[in-house]
Amino acid sequence: MVHATPFLLVLSLAMLAPALSARKSTPAQCVLDGRWTDDQSSIMTIEPVSAECDLKGSYVRDVPETENKLVESPLLGYRDCTDQTQPIFGFTVNWKSSDSVTVFTGQCFVGEDGKEVLRTMWLLRSHEDSIKDDWKATKVGTTVFTRQSQEEE
Amino acid sequence: MVHATPFLLVLSLAMLAPALSARKSTPAQCVLDGRWTDDQSSIMTIEPVSAECDLKGSYVRDVPETENKLVESPLLGYRDCTDQTQPIFGFTVNWKSSDSVTVFTGQCFVGEDGKEVLRTMWLLRSHEDSIKDDWKATKVGTTVFTRQSQEEE
Amino acid sequence: MVHATPFLLVLSLAMLAPALSARKSTPAQCVLDGRWTDDQSSIMTIEPVSAECDLKGSYVRDVPETENKLVESPLLGYRDCTDQTQPIFGFTVNWKSSDSVTVFTGQCFVGEDGKEVLRTMWLLRSHEDSIKDDWKATKVGTTVFTRQSQEEE
Amino acid sequence: MVHATPFLLVLSLAMLAPALSARKSTPAQCVLDGRWTDDQSSIMTIEPVSAECDLKGSYVRDVPETENKLVESPLLGYRDCTDQTQPIFGFTVNWKSSDSVTVFTGQCFVGEDGKEVLRTMWLLRSHEDSIKDDWKATKVGTTVFTRQSQEEE
Repeated sequence: MVHATPFLLVLSLAMLAPALSARKSTPAQCVLDGRWTDDQSSIMTIEPVSAECDLKGSYVRDVPETENKLVESPLLGYRDCTDQTQPIFGFTVNWKSSDSVTVFTGQCFVGEDGKEVLRTMWLLRSHEDSIKDDWKATKVGTTVFTRQSQEEE
Repeated sequence: MVHATPFLLVLSLAMLAPALSARKSTPAQCVLDGRWTDDQSSIMTIEPVSAECDLKGSYVRDVPETENKLVESPLLGYRDCTDQTQPIFGFTVNWKSSDSVTVFTGQCFVGEDGKEVLRTMWLLRSHEDSIKDDWKATKVGTTVFTRQSQEEE
Repeated sequence: MVHATPFLLVLSLAMLAPALSARKSTPAQCVLDGRWTDDQSSIMTIEPVSAECDLKGSYVRDVPETENKLVESPLLGYRDCTDQTQPIFGFTVNWKSSDSVTVFTGQCFVGEDGKEVLRTMWLLRSHEDSIKDDWKATKVGTTVFTRQSQEEE
Repeated sequence: MVHATPFLLVLSLAMLAPALSARKSTPAQCVLDGRWTDDQSSIMTIEPVSAECDLKGSYVRDVPETENKLVESPLLGYRDCTDQTQPIFGFTVNWKSSDSVTVFTGQCFVGEDGKEVLRTMWLLRSHEDSIKDDWKATKVGTTVFTRQSQEEE
C-alpha cells in the first residue's frame, strides 16, 4: 500500500498533465470537421479539410412543415487558414427542399468547459418575383452548434 | 353622362395597356457571370456557371486604410438553379488582407430600366480571441452591385 | 375483439389527456416588467406598462474595457398590445458610455420549463464621421434575457 | 423689370450664401426633424427635438397587399445628443396594421451633394406562437430616407 502512493501520484500527474498543458496553451484546438447539431435537431457535417482552406459538407434541417423535411442539402465555403486554433468560417447552404439559400458565418470556439462550439449568425434569403419585394427577402438569426455525441450518430 | 361611359372605358384600357404588356415581358434574364462593381469601387468577378450550380469568382475591395488594399480574395458559394431568370445566390469571401470572412446573399434582378442589379446583404465576421467577445464579432450591411461597363474594364 | 374497443378508447383518451391539458394551459402569460439579465451580466429593467403600450426602462452593461462600465443607460420603445400572453417588443438604448445606440427587438416567451425568456436580436450602431464609412457602422447579434432571480437583486 | 435684375441677383446670392458657407465647414448640420421618404413611398415624420434627446414621430408605410395600407403608426426612440452635426439615432415603430414591430437605427448624413440623407438598417420582428418558431421571426434590411421635397407635401 505504501508503495502504491508514488505510483498513484505519478498516475494523477499523468492524467492532469494534458489538462494543465491545455490550460497553459489555451485556447485549445477547435476542429471544424465532423458532425454538428443545433437545438432544432439539424445535422451539419463538415468534411475533412482540403489544402486550400475550402469548406465542404452537408446540412439536414428538420423542418416539420416541409414535406421533404430530411433532404440533405450541400454546403460550400471557406475556413480561415491563418488561425489554426479557433478558426472563423463562412459557408452557403443551397436548400434542396425550398427556393432559398442560407449563408452562415461564425467561429469555432473551445468553451470554458473544454467543449467545442460553433457560434454562427446567418442570413436566409428567399426568392422574390420582383425587385420591389426585395426588401422583405432576408431573415437573420443565430445558430449554436455543438459536436454530435457518438451515441447520437 | 351616359355617353361618357364608353370613353372612360377606352381610357381605362389605354392606361392599363402598358402595365399589361410590361407584365408579359418581365422579368428578363439576369445573368450572374461577369464583372460587377459597387459604390465602394469593389470589383467582383463571377466565373461562368458550372453544371452543379456552384458559384466561383474573386473579389477586390478598395479599402483605403488597408496596406494591401487591392489584393484579390477568392469567393465560393451557390447559385439557385431552379430559377433561371432572376436567381438567388450566396457566397463566402475569404479575405486575404485581413483575418475575417464575409458571407453575401442576394438576388440577381432586372430593374425597371432593364439593367441587371445584384441586391445583396452580408455578414462580416471578425476573429475573436475568446468566446466572451463573440457577441461583437459580426457586422451587417447591404451592397448593391451593377454590371461594370466595358469602358471601366 | 368487441371488448377491445372500449379499452382502446380509454387508452386513446389517456394518451390525449396530457396533450389537451397542455394545450389548454399554454402559452402562459409572459410579463415584460421587471429585471432581466443575460450571459454578459447586463441588467435590463423594464418599468410597469403604461396605458399606451410604451416601453421604458434602463440598461446596465458590464463592459470591462470601458471606464464608466456600470453607467445606466435609458431605453425607450413599444410593446405590442394586441397579444397579452407572449408580447413582441422593440426598444432603443441610448448608451451613456459611448457614442452609439442599440435597437433591440424580440418576444417574451414562456419556455417549456415554464420560465419566462426574452429572445431578442439587436443592431448596434456606431457613429461615423463620413457617409463613406457608413457601410461598417452596424453590428448585429442575439441576446437572450432571463428573469433575474430574487437572490441576485 | 430692368431694375429688378440686380435685386434678384442679390437675392440669389443671399440664398446661396448659407449653402456655400455650409460646404466650407463640412460636414454640415444634418437635422432629423421633418418629413422623410424612401423608395417604397413610405412617409416618416420626426417631430422637433425635445430637451432629453427623445425621438418621436410617425410612419406611414405604403404596403399594397395590406388592407389598411395607409394607417399611421407611431415611432419612439432616441437621437444621440453628443454629435450635433451628423447624429446617430434609433427608434421603434409599433405597426398598427400588423402584429409586428420594426426597430431602425442609423445616422443622419450630409452627402457630397449637400443633401441630407438618413442611412438606416432595421429589424422587422413578427409574432410567433411558440418559442420553437422564434428562429424565423426576424427580417433584416436597409432603408435610405431623403427629405421630402416641399412640392410632395
